[in-house]
Amino acid sequence: MENVKVIIWGLGAMGGGVAKTLLQKKGVDIVGAIDIGAKVGKGLFEVLGQEFPDKEDIKVGSTDDYIKPEYADVVILCTDSYVKGNFEKIKLIVENKMNVISSAEEMAYPKAQNPELAEEIDQLATENGVSVLGTGINPGHIMDLLVLVMTGALIDIKHITSKRINSLSPFGEAVMEEQGIGLELNEFNRRKEAGEMAGHVGFEESIHMMADALGVELSEMSTDMEAIVTDVDRKSPYGFAKAGQVAGVFMTAKGMVDGQEFFNLEHPQQIEPEQVGVDTGDYVIIDGSPKVNLINTPEIEGGLGTIAMLVNMIPKIINADPGLKTMIDLPIPHAIIGDFRDQIKEYKKIVK
Amino acid sequence: MENVKVIIWGLGAMGGGVAKTLLQKKGVDIVGAIDIGAKVGKGLFEVLGQEFPDKEDIKVGSTDDYIKPEYADVVILCTDSYVKGNFEKIKLIVENKMNVISSAEEMAYPKAQNPELAEEIDQLATENGVSVLGTGINPGHIMDLLVLVMTGALIDIKHITSKRINSLSPFGEAVMEEQGIGLELNEFNRRKEAGEMAGHVGFEESIHMMADALGVELSEMSTDMEAIVTDVDRKSPYGFAKAGQVAGVFMTAKGMVDGQEFFNLEHPQQIEPEQVGVDTGDYVIIDGSPKVNLINTPEIEGGLGTIAMLVNMIPKIINADPGLKTMIDLPIPHAIIGDFRDQIKEYKKIVK
Repeated sequence: MENVKVIIWGLGAMGGGVAKTLLQKKGVDIVGAIDIGAKVGKGLFEVLGQEFPDKEDIKVGSTDDYIKPEYADVVILCTDSYVKGNFEKIKLIVENKMNVISSAEEMAYPKAQNPELAEEIDQLATENGVSVLGTGINPGHIMDLLVLVMTGALIDIKHITSKRINSLSPFGEAVMEEQGIGLELNEFNRRKEAGEMAGHVGFEESIHMMADALGVELSEMSTDMEAIVTDVDRKSPYGFAKAGQVAGVFMTAKGMVDGQEFFNLEHPQQIEPEQVGVDTGDYVIIDGSPKVNLINTPEIEGGLGTIAMLVNMIPKIINADPGLKTMIDLPIPHAIIGDFRDQIKEYKKIVK
Repeated sequence: MENVKVIIWGLGAMGGGVAKTLLQKKGVDIVGAIDIGAKVGKGLFEVLGQEFPDKEDIKVGSTDDYIKPEYADVVILCTDSYVKGNFEKIKLIVENKMNVISSAEEMAYPKAQNPELAEEIDQLATENGVSVLGTGINPGHIMDLLVLVMTGALIDIKHITSKRINSLSPFGEAVMEEQGIGLELNEFNRRKEAGEMAGHVGFEESIHMMADALGVELSEMSTDMEAIVTDVDRKSPYGFAKAGQVAGVFMTAKGMVDGQEFFNLEHPQQIEPEQVGVDTGDYVIIDGSPKVNLINTPEIEGGLGTIAMLVNMIPKIINADPGLKTMIDLPIPHAIIGDFRDQIKEYKKIVK
């Protein structure tokens, strides 16, 4: 069988990380890399800042260079967080008869906030005989998939708490800006009121995914965010918050079923949590029969975790039936240590 | 759509628990119950020792009464732990064109120890257009599936430790006998040497499942068991071990990859662990990129956990493509709070 062929669209932190990971894996080749601006025309290794002597260096190009009929088995799309931002790109890819895995948080469960576009993506994918998935560490794993997997061992559930207490310190300038690190509190609140604070994108997707899987009807859901104001100066590689300034965002979401709180999600994100005695970790606490009291500490690092999910789901989306898929439709995610080709059903391979 | 129709074959602790759970769920009916001996001819509610006023009480019967063409959508088989013990029963069920979920530990990954029978089951199921799955809490979830799901967030792995430290106190006389509770050490060792101590069944299945999913080649695997001798008298509802006697079994397994230990599984099972300061729990510790350090404490109770997995996988095996399936082939397990029919693809329903 030919190696699995992958195009990476968007060479930021996530797309670049996917590229570096795939260049160290067996049975898989990067056959295309798409970006805009100064990166176009450069070699991929130069853009990644790393050589991979056993692999072919390709040129970073435009969609015209690489989005061509059956040019790859899958395109990894790492451009933005939103279904609306992804839609035209996905349409172009599936019309060229390639599968898609997107890092867009909203694509993890697109029908949560964009049911019409989700329907349209499903139709386009089905017509073209390919499949489309959105995934990542969160949404896509820690605050939804892992919770659901634990409920597999339960016969009944009264209430679910899912918490992800993570450090923003490993992230770069874009994340510092998005999360308001270093803002004065009144500026944070002004931006929040104006709808300019993104915070974590994905609560709607996680809660709707869980509700649909469990078969409970959400009567209401709400999300909120509060500034985490620091008492002491905190400094991370790309962020700085003086005492009294914003060092992170405490995101929360609640989902109601039959008039009672059923889902409680808490996701405080901040730089240098250790400095103030905050232990990071992933928590799944379920009041059910039996009960679940799970902690993973420290938390799975968001950047690497998302890169891993995008890479590890490649065989699953190639093997899938045509259409728009989510993490609850496909076999479980797992690492791939061996040859990618061993994970592929031959009749589903696009590049023969 | 008609309610999902289920036959339960074997009304011991597991089959009986599945029956009680299903009788409290929506959109699913028990249409057959099979056992041997004194239970035959009695009403199911009498055998379960519980009334379910909204549900029909059926008579416990034989295979002739219930294993008939397309009589149910799925048969839950809870009779023994082994592929050889299951084989003729599965053959009879699939030849009557019904799906199967088995609680037999070896059926969780039958090709680990019974590759020829696994092949034959796959062929029989495929020919008859139905699917077959083995599952439970372990193997099937805690020491294999949960580990794999955590590796979904990893780009590389050096070593995996999976531990399940559980209490045997909730279990009945059969388990006390199987695990040697109350034996003198020399009698335990005699039985162990003679191959008469079953201990935990499932390490071969868990390790082969994980190795195949990750794509690593096992060069060798080994299992061992040691008696847990108590310093103090321990008493559980069905078990008793005097100081100096056996209060449990410490089961271990190792799997080697490229001449190095890659999988390390530890599973100490004992009555009343709290009495001697042993904290029960499920642990997944992965030396990889990133690392995993997960604890669920106390452990998911084995009995309820297995019952839940058998119940919760019903829609997944009905929806599956024909053939022998394992937990790594099917969508993730999760609890079902709503109507079972909402989880079923209409064209896969057997009883229309």
